[in-house]
Amino acid sequence: MRDFLVYIENKHTPESPYFVSKEAVSRALGPNARRSEIVIHPEQEPDLNVLRSASYFVGSGFDVRRLREHGQSLRFVHCTSAGVEKYMPLDWLPNGAFLTNSSGVHAEKGGAFGAMTVMMLCEGVPRHIRNQRLRRWDNQLSACLSSKTVVVLGFGELGSAIASRLRPFGVRIVGVSRSGRPHPDANEMVEVGDLQSVLPIADCLVVSCPLTPQTFGLIGRKQIASMKSGASLFNIARGPVVDNAALCAALEAGHLSGAALDVFDPEPLPATSPLWDVPNLMIFPHISCDDADGYVDRCLSIFAENVEHDLAGRPLRNRVDGKAGY
Amino acid sequence: MRDFLVYIENKHTPESPYFVSKEAVSRALGPNARRSEIVIHPEQEPDLNVLRSASYFVGSGFDVRRLREHGQSLRFVHCTSAGVEKYMPLDWLPNGAFLTNSSGVHAEKGGAFGAMTVMMLCEGVPRHIRNQRLRRWDNQLSACLSSKTVVVLGFGELGSAIASRLRPFGVRIVGVSRSGRPHPDANEMVEVGDLQSVLPIADCLVVSCPLTPQTFGLIGRKQIASMKSGASLFNIARGPVVDNAALCAALEAGHLSGAALDVFDPEPLPATSPLWDVPNLMIFPHISCDDADGYVDRCLSIFAENVEHDLAGRPLRNRVDGKAGY
Repeated sequence: MRDFLVYIENKHTPESPYFVSKEAVSRALGPNARRSEIVIHPEQEPDLNVLRSASYFVGSGFDVRRLREHGQSLRFVHCTSAGVEKYMPLDWLPNGAFLTNSSGVHAEKGGAFGAMTVMMLCEGVPRHIRNQRLRRWDNQLSACLSSKTVVVLGFGELGSAIASRLRPFGVRIVGVSRSGRPHPDANEMVEVGDLQSVLPIADCLVVSCPLTPQTFGLIGRKQIASMKSGASLFNIARGPVVDNAALCAALEAGHLSGAALDVFDPEPLPATSPLWDVPNLMIFPHISCDDADGYVDRCLSIFAENVEHDLAGRPLRNRVDGKAGY
Repeated sequence: MRDFLVYIENKHTPESPYFVSKEAVSRALGPNARRSEIVIHPEQEPDLNVLRSASYFVGSGFDVRRLREHGQSLRFVHCTSAGVEKYMPLDWLPNGAFLTNSSGVHAEKGGAFGAMTVMMLCEGVPRHIRNQRLRRWDNQLSACLSSKTVVVLGFGELGSAIASRLRPFGVRIVGVSRSGRPHPDANEMVEVGDLQSVLPIADCLVVSCPLTPQTFGLIGRKQIASMKSGASLFNIARGPVVDNAALCAALEAGHLSGAALDVFDPEPLPATSPLWDVPNLMIFPHISCDDADGYVDRCLSIFAENVEHDLAGRPLRNRVDGKAGY
């Protein structure tokens, strides 16, 4: 007999690095696996009877109406992403259940990828890529990273992971968060209300905040205009945080020396999008934060830890705050 | 009256970051500047009378025959580069004078640039660049850096600087040096004679050794063939260390997933070179190790330290070993 049922919704085929197998869930649950029944369902053919008796749901990009209607036994819903904007507002959560996310699983990969991309922008790699296409030898030198200031907008798990990896290179980090509270990975922290005052000192702006009504379009024409000439930008958050029309205009005009985007709206970026060809803009296909090795295992380890907490009546980790939107 | 004369040969215009000004030399010499006369000459119109009475010569890419013929008062010749292959053999050094180089001045910039490039290669950035040109969304994930092994061929100032910056990302470093002596920035060191045995474990091979008769063509068809499929290579040393025909064949065949070159023979790389268009090959115009801020000052600081040593009768730092070739 099982004490609880875990319902896994898979949008992916077994070949995908995002595929969640029964074995992986069982491994993550450890000793609790013996008390569990684990059911894996593809998104297209859900067994609603099973869903109705599930205590825990794990998925990504799931249909919240289905959970509202058939998730009456759910104690919490775990999503295998950090961003949760598509599940807002949380009025669909049945019977006081919680939503938990996978914030933190991106720290290693996204921290390194973010640091690398900031370095590429500070080193003028977009210019070198363009020069290579033109067979042009332009050996203009760039300054050392130790002379650079990077403003990191959104100083959560991802933003601070990027910052902590840049610090050893002597980069000065100015973090921007809701609270503006000091953080060991930042030389300076400011509240998001003071964003405008730190944009002019940024050699590179990293956008790593959640997408919420407050951050939607937060980096627009005015914000980009107040950045200094030759600065750069990397959006590793969510597409709609940055006004791409304003960004592209600044790149075309040469006001910004380069930019990189890993996130778009919609994704995949359509082949017809003008973004592919913008000068000094690097396009990454939303690969910055997930890795081919242990991504699902790390998501499931947060999930399993919360199962343990829930069975013991303790508060859950990574609980999404419906008011804050993340 | 002056105690000694410093002869600076400038190949560069005052706008160049490589330009050596009298003020910079004087600043570097500190208190010894008062005892010195500093003469700056362009390469094209040397004053041979001045050169004949100079105790110290500073230059880059200089004509060794001119120094042999007119440098009879020289105590040492300082070159503002780390590589000294073009001054070999050292039979031109007059009256037992020494050649000193600027090894070490590249550590900050080249260490960071090298680490960035290794990260780009491990992250498949060359593939992403190509996909962007093709407007192709291919979100294949890469593994975390902590699963990667980087073999660093040449573990001097530059190689070890690259390694030390990769270590915090969890990269495993295998260093290759003449002696194979343990080094704090490497997980493992091997002698250059054992290079072949470590090539198969490299996810990325960094070539950062001096160019000498022993390293000329050291990375050729056989060495590249013994690297594992999907590995990558970065040459930040000197062009002739790597057989580019073999490298390009491996890239065309897909055996290597990517490569980056910052050094060529000749430089600038001619616009007609086939290298510009090789798939997954990134071309950097010899900008990896020099910076726009303090490059000359750092070179001059080694020079000035050696003037101090010489005046005090102490051994010189960064003395080039004519036998070893670096």
